[in-house]
Amino acid sequence: MHFTVGVIGLGLIGGSMALDLKRRGFANKVLGVENDSVAAQAAQTIGLVDEVVSYEDCVARADIVVVAVPVGTAVKMVPDILDRFAAGGHAPSGAFARTGSQSDAEEGVCPSVAKEQIVIDVCSTKEQICNATKYHPLRKQFVSTHPMAGTEYSGPWAAQPGLFDGRACIFANAEESAPKAVKVIEELYGVLNMRPIYMNAASHDVHTAYVSHISHVTSFALALTVLDKEKDEKHIFDLASGGFSSTVRLAKSNADMWVPILTQNHDNVLHVMDTYIEKMQQFREAVANYDEARIRELIQEANRIKKIIR
Amino acid sequence: MHFTVGVIGLGLIGGSMALDLKRRGFANKVLGVENDSVAAQAAQTIGLVDEVVSYEDCVARADIVVVAVPVGTAVKMVPDILDRFAAGGHAPSGAFARTGSQSDAEEGVCPSVAKEQIVIDVCSTKEQICNATKYHPLRKQFVSTHPMAGTEYSGPWAAQPGLFDGRACIFANAEESAPKAVKVIEELYGVLNMRPIYMNAASHDVHTAYVSHISHVTSFALALTVLDKEKDEKHIFDLASGGFSSTVRLAKSNADMWVPILTQNHDNVLHVMDTYIEKMQQFREAVANYDEARIRELIQEANRIKKIIR
Repeated sequence: MHFTVGVIGLGLIGGSMALDLKRRGFANKVLGVENDSVAAQAAQTIGLVDEVVSYEDCVARADIVVVAVPVGTAVKMVPDILDRFAAGGHAPSGAFARTGSQSDAEEGVCPSVAKEQIVIDVCSTKEQICNATKYHPLRKQFVSTHPMAGTEYSGPWAAQPGLFDGRACIFANAEESAPKAVKVIEELYGVLNMRPIYMNAASHDVHTAYVSHISHVTSFALALTVLDKEKDEKHIFDLASGGFSSTVRLAKSNADMWVPILTQNHDNVLHVMDTYIEKMQQFREAVANYDEARIRELIQEANRIKKIIR
Repeated sequence: MHFTVGVIGLGLIGGSMALDLKRRGFANKVLGVENDSVAAQAAQTIGLVDEVVSYEDCVARADIVVVAVPVGTAVKMVPDILDRFAAGGHAPSGAFARTGSQSDAEEGVCPSVAKEQIVIDVCSTKEQICNATKYHPLRKQFVSTHPMAGTEYSGPWAAQPGLFDGRACIFANAEESAPKAVKVIEELYGVLNMRPIYMNAASHDVHTAYVSHISHVTSFALALTVLDKEKDEKHIFDLASGGFSSTVRLAKSNADMWVPILTQNHDNVLHVMDTYIEKMQQFREAVANYDEARIRELIQEANRIKKIIR
């Protein structure tokens, strides 16, 4: 392999990816782009990337560009990167030639200028970014993915080796990408030990609203509730058991990342929130009425999650 | 020390307590009481207790009786145990004589029959159990505690060494117990490496509604929401990230334990649920209106939990 990988956004996801792609030999060089100068300095000091470069430089030099910025920015950045690919300027590192076949044109990678470059995004919502690139002439050089891993921390300081091991990675609308490009990115995630799952972008956004986005909203609401009422922070600190800590953990998540996710996945998130509020109301009614049978019923229904999660 | 400790209810809490009190030398003998015959057999096979005995036998023989049953049962059981203490029948094991002073009467432990026995409960709500025992003639031999530790699993199989290490243990209305009895129970929790916190029962129930009970309700509601919508369980399994798993973890909790907690702490829980639903509605409105500034504000407010939890 030995690709030159350019990572734009050296936060938790971009940074962790940079780390393992280099350590595990997928990348022989990792270029990093980071707007925040403190974070950029840190990423270099920690050793996440070989070089911090400009956006233009990264897009020009990398075989694979990984867009790891908040999804609001990514939606504009990916088409721009494809434009830059089209405008040429890439000096191929030769990595593709070593692993791929010679029949790029047949397999659908744009055979003209910058023929071998690939851009991927790693964002948590997929429909808008897929829509924004759908009719781009170089759409086939874009692979839209969502590696489902993370922690509640952010920034290059939060990057960690092995973050992705054993988790699922969604490939959204993979049929819109060149098969060869998909294959390369499958290899990339294979090196990160991720299980690929193929899904259309719309389904992805429905499912993640349920199994990821709503969890964040419920945690934010929990933190707000407790902070609102427990003026004495010492009590929260003293009394918080493991249960509370794990339920509220996601409330530490970063606004820059979550504001665009919640607005981009607006319809699905709203729908799930409404269902959730309805369930809370049912629970509230049962408690208000001291209806032990109904509370038991709701708890036992909820307990079914045991069969699915671990 | 070398007390004979009787544990009634060999589940997660009772079983873990039995395990460490014996291993760490606080108890030279642990008697266990367990209604469920399979659980009783398991507790003996696993080695949680030295002997499984009858309730009557346990109350008669133990220096310290630990009531580790759901709080609905405990509210009736603790007064009954105090009645049995009053009726006599305890053959002191001599453990108190070795560690305590001779002046039991001065220090307030009932000096008559069964003079040295102590009963404690370990339940998650404190007001009802303290009210139910308030005027009992042997109230001073009861110490009401809440060791704030646990997992979402239940039964003797869930018991584990070290479960309590480093966590907080509430002593509720400790002034209603004999100082000597409190001292012995402080030693017991000291052996379990717990930090004692003293609080009146009513405050305890308010605070735990915020930092524990609501977390369980929000997890139950989350599980119900996801199970309701994601008919295809394979998707939940595939897509559930670490975030969802940790947020929904408490939804595995046992109905036998949680139904009485939610009804006993009815007023506080209802109040917190109403605040929580209000916060969810605020969040819903912000998302519905694509109000990015407001979503950001709510998230950043929620982020303050970072300063308190780890």
